[in-house]
Amino acid sequence: MKLYDFPKAPNPRRVNIYLAEKGIDIERVAVDLFKGEQLSSEYRAKNPACDIPMLELDDGTCISQIRGICRYFEESKPSPSLSGTTASEKATVEMWDHLAFMNGILAVAEVFRNSAEGFADRAVVGPHNYPQLPGLAERGALRLQNFYTDFDQRLADNDYVAGNFYSLADITTLVVCDFAKWIKEDIPANCTHLQAWYDKVSQRPAVLANP
Amino acid sequence: MKLYDFPKAPNPRRVNIYLAEKGIDIERVAVDLFKGEQLSSEYRAKNPACDIPMLELDDGTCISQIRGICRYFEESKPSPSLSGTTASEKATVEMWDHLAFMNGILAVAEVFRNSAEGFADRAVVGPHNYPQLPGLAERGALRLQNFYTDFDQRLADNDYVAGNFYSLADITTLVVCDFAKWIKEDIPANCTHLQAWYDKVSQRPAVLANP
Repeated sequence: MKLYDFPKAPNPRRVNIYLAEKGIDIERVAVDLFKGEQLSSEYRAKNPACDIPMLELDDGTCISQIRGICRYFEESKPSPSLSGTTASEKATVEMWDHLAFMNGILAVAEVFRNSAEGFADRAVVGPHNYPQLPGLAERGALRLQNFYTDFDQRLADNDYVAGNFYSLADITTLVVCDFAKWIKEDIPANCTHLQAWYDKVSQRPAVLANP
Repeated sequence: MKLYDFPKAPNPRRVNIYLAEKGIDIERVAVDLFKGEQLSSEYRAKNPACDIPMLELDDGTCISQIRGICRYFEESKPSPSLSGTTASEKATVEMWDHLAFMNGILAVAEVFRNSAEGFADRAVVGPHNYPQLPGLAERGALRLQNFYTDFDQRLADNDYVAGNFYSLADITTLVVCDFAKWIKEDIPANCTHLQAWYDKVSQRPAVLANP
């Protein structure tokens, strides 16, 4: 089993923190996104979505998308759980992980991919080229501010993003806050609940080991 | 237990087909998206994400996001499974459901929400208003064409989207193809594998019961 990885990027980092929390050690294959190695014909044959991370099982099955990779390990090594334990908790983790991804990860990615010089035709992850839309970079910045306010409100009433337990939804939310540093949009000073949660979760050994 | 629903819209339809496939009957509460009822203070108190569908459990827990709602029923009524059975199958369903959502549902939504007259300040689902970006409508149309080609290729080698079994990933992909009719972008004539798969899955009783 191998994980195709590029630890500097935010989405691979979500999986790397997840695996460290679960105590799973796995062989890594480096794929350099900055050199475009995810678009090589060799990699594309394994993963037509041309993104990182990607998990290759011993039988050759290739799983891309963080939801897919984390689900594989949730099923094959349930403990410690990062997905809740009851049906209601598991559903709540899925919900908040999705909201952090949609309103946080995608918002920062909209800014970064539609404004960074090196991404001129790479505004969307995947095999196809699309030109940058400057208006989308502007909108992403507005969306990120709303993400900060909304998640601050959530964390005013809850110890963790999905409730009273640490989960995959916290990992995604933490990675949003660090990814936002790439575009110089730190947690706003008035989001005190989000900041206190961030200070707490960023000290976890699995997070410190995957900076 | 209640499902807050608006059956005309594509995302609620994904859950309605899913529930019909699993034989789950549940009380529905109608929320009219075209009248903006999802933005009322009463609904917002239950679901700050202000989207439909939303599941309210008997203990008052509210689960939004399709991933969350389907996961609740996958855990509480596993059979018949629409998520695969092994860890590898479950991971593969998550992967393909995510790809169909990201590259299909979101692509059509980019076109629709950034061009339809009634959505002037509603370019993004949720509680916050964002102006339309005409360039994003154009890009969404290109992305949809790539979705069609990529999924046609996937279905050239597989009976169903996630492999040799019907799953949630098929439901999402089917809903993309029907949602695309809203913007008059039917499956292209050269996507014969996708068309054959569509003709097959659209005849399932659960799909016919939720047009």
